[in-house]
Amino acid sequence: VSSTPSQSADNRRFVLAKRPDGLPQASDFRLETGPIPKPGRGQFLVRNVYIPVDPGMRPGLSDDTTGVQAFAPVPLGAVVGYLTVGQVVRSEHPVFAPGDWVTDHLLWQDYAVSDGTRARKIALHPNLSPSTACGVLGVPGLSAYFGTLAVAEVKPGDVVLVTSIAGAVGSIAGQIAALKGCRVVGTAGGAKKCAWAKERFGFADIVDYKARPDLAAALREICRDGIDVLFDNVGNAMIDLVLPLMRRNGRIVICGQVADYGIPYRDMAGIRNTNRFAFQQLTLRGLFTPAFEDRYPTAIAEMTDWILDGKLTYVEDIETGFEKLPTAFASLFRGENLGRKLIKTG
Amino acid sequence: VSSTPSQSADNRRFVLAKRPDGLPQASDFRLETGPIPKPGRGQFLVRNVYIPVDPGMRPGLSDDTTGVQAFAPVPLGAVVGYLTVGQVVRSEHPVFAPGDWVTDHLLWQDYAVSDGTRARKIALHPNLSPSTACGVLGVPGLSAYFGTLAVAEVKPGDVVLVTSIAGAVGSIAGQIAALKGCRVVGTAGGAKKCAWAKERFGFADIVDYKARPDLAAALREICRDGIDVLFDNVGNAMIDLVLPLMRRNGRIVICGQVADYGIPYRDMAGIRNTNRFAFQQLTLRGLFTPAFEDRYPTAIAEMTDWILDGKLTYVEDIETGFEKLPTAFASLFRGENLGRKLIKTG
Repeated sequence: VSSTPSQSADNRRFVLAKRPDGLPQASDFRLETGPIPKPGRGQFLVRNVYIPVDPGMRPGLSDDTTGVQAFAPVPLGAVVGYLTVGQVVRSEHPVFAPGDWVTDHLLWQDYAVSDGTRARKIALHPNLSPSTACGVLGVPGLSAYFGTLAVAEVKPGDVVLVTSIAGAVGSIAGQIAALKGCRVVGTAGGAKKCAWAKERFGFADIVDYKARPDLAAALREICRDGIDVLFDNVGNAMIDLVLPLMRRNGRIVICGQVADYGIPYRDMAGIRNTNRFAFQQLTLRGLFTPAFEDRYPTAIAEMTDWILDGKLTYVEDIETGFEKLPTAFASLFRGENLGRKLIKTG
Repeated sequence: VSSTPSQSADNRRFVLAKRPDGLPQASDFRLETGPIPKPGRGQFLVRNVYIPVDPGMRPGLSDDTTGVQAFAPVPLGAVVGYLTVGQVVRSEHPVFAPGDWVTDHLLWQDYAVSDGTRARKIALHPNLSPSTACGVLGVPGLSAYFGTLAVAEVKPGDVVLVTSIAGAVGSIAGQIAALKGCRVVGTAGGAKKCAWAKERFGFADIVDYKARPDLAAALREICRDGIDVLFDNVGNAMIDLVLPLMRRNGRIVICGQVADYGIPYRDMAGIRNTNRFAFQQLTLRGLFTPAFEDRYPTAIAEMTDWILDGKLTYVEDIETGFEKLPTAFASLFRGENLGRKLIKTG
């Protein structure tokens, strides 16, 4: 079959050429080739088919020692990347067989060997592409699901502010909150992106932060009675700005921190309006999606139903061409993408 | 009886003379006198006997418009203060009778009229002074109780860091956590205060932050396996410093923010190490003690038992003399006090 690698084929991969200085650039990565690895006993070989371009990869590219890294930095010269979706092409593993679709931490490369420890088989639905396993039915969608339902515990009538609501996580989080009877308000950058998100996902209230430099005032206008839940994908400055608008018993979920990734500790914005926490009895929690791993099957089943019933919409922006990964990644940080950005390896 | 005011007696009170510039000074307050008010129908007159000196009064003395005040500022010329403990001397109220001991928001003055809405009758225990109603059995003790048990939900085996552990709230919080089987670690300023708190409350591990400028390193040494609960009375910089030491599923309770009170927003420290929240699945919550008002009787009964059983110790530093209030308040912010500071009006 076409997915069987020829023994002579090179394995392309992107390594970290240099640590980004501020916003990542395509030139921070270097294309290398090498032999296709061979699976040993208890292992299998995967051909990556879909490689998502994920802002969550950003922190690991820095080794800022003035601050605190939650993740160990990727060494210079090491292959970069995160979760991928691919197909097993050869197997010495009892559970994973050739032809199986899997998602695993297999990085920015054509082929990778896995021992299955962190791999998850994709239960393919005939009406859904395997690519959904790294989007709406993968970590972004699961983050939206558990962030809204398990961490924020959204309730009907809540006013839920989702920042980066046009993004891969935000667009799903906003829709799930709306499905649960919340009033959903969002932020996004640029008239085009706001209009697109309103039209594609049905969000009524999106504030264009590029058009409204006084974002706090804009949010206050649109949320006159305050905000119950902040589902944040932006970072410290955004949380600080929204805190004074939070209603009693409000919940803040830290999902993404795209504005803080790669910023040295000394230059980073901080959360200062913390007096609101006691006075308004607020809770701030971090979302660590893998903590909910045992509930992934239930969540995926429920979200699949919503998709098939037309209640949940997702947008994938798939480009073909492995070599486009660095450019696509850099463009994320310029806010240029509409929908979940994926590279189909070819 | 001696608590009946003579009609000619002046009612002494302290008003806000000017807004503190940085640390509060005694000269920020002005002594005034006026007539003793008369209770109308449904009201009663209280003579304040114990007036606590509380750092929580600090934020209301500022009107910093660059930041966000949780409380409305006290107007210049208005009587300052917060909760007091006193005795009813005259009553036109169906529930509160002369001789009753009450705690209420009756400010820094000899006499005040109450309508009972926010007043609480003190169930006097023969072995306990009514002054405890503004200390261990008042808001400080209740903050310690609900902060540890209801907000942080401390569990046996937790490593609990209590900042300002020699203070009115911290000393009780640390003891309650220890009673529940936690390992308690604290911070306090100065060798004398640390030794005093160890001796009086039985805390084994207190870090003297004045002697250890690298407080993070000192805490890391003493909490080699990390911290499960931070019960914070200091403020943003302390939380930021402790965040990297927090263990998975850790909880941070914002109880007091003494280092941030009165600091203009632009100069305030911020919490920046927020990447820890997701990675370590941390929760930060504000403690608003009045939210637990319906559980006060249970808490007071339980803490009274602990006190009488010798399991819970408290220290009151009572000075007699109404006129000493401003000096005592200012001294709080220089970290000079040992124990709950109270003024007995005389």
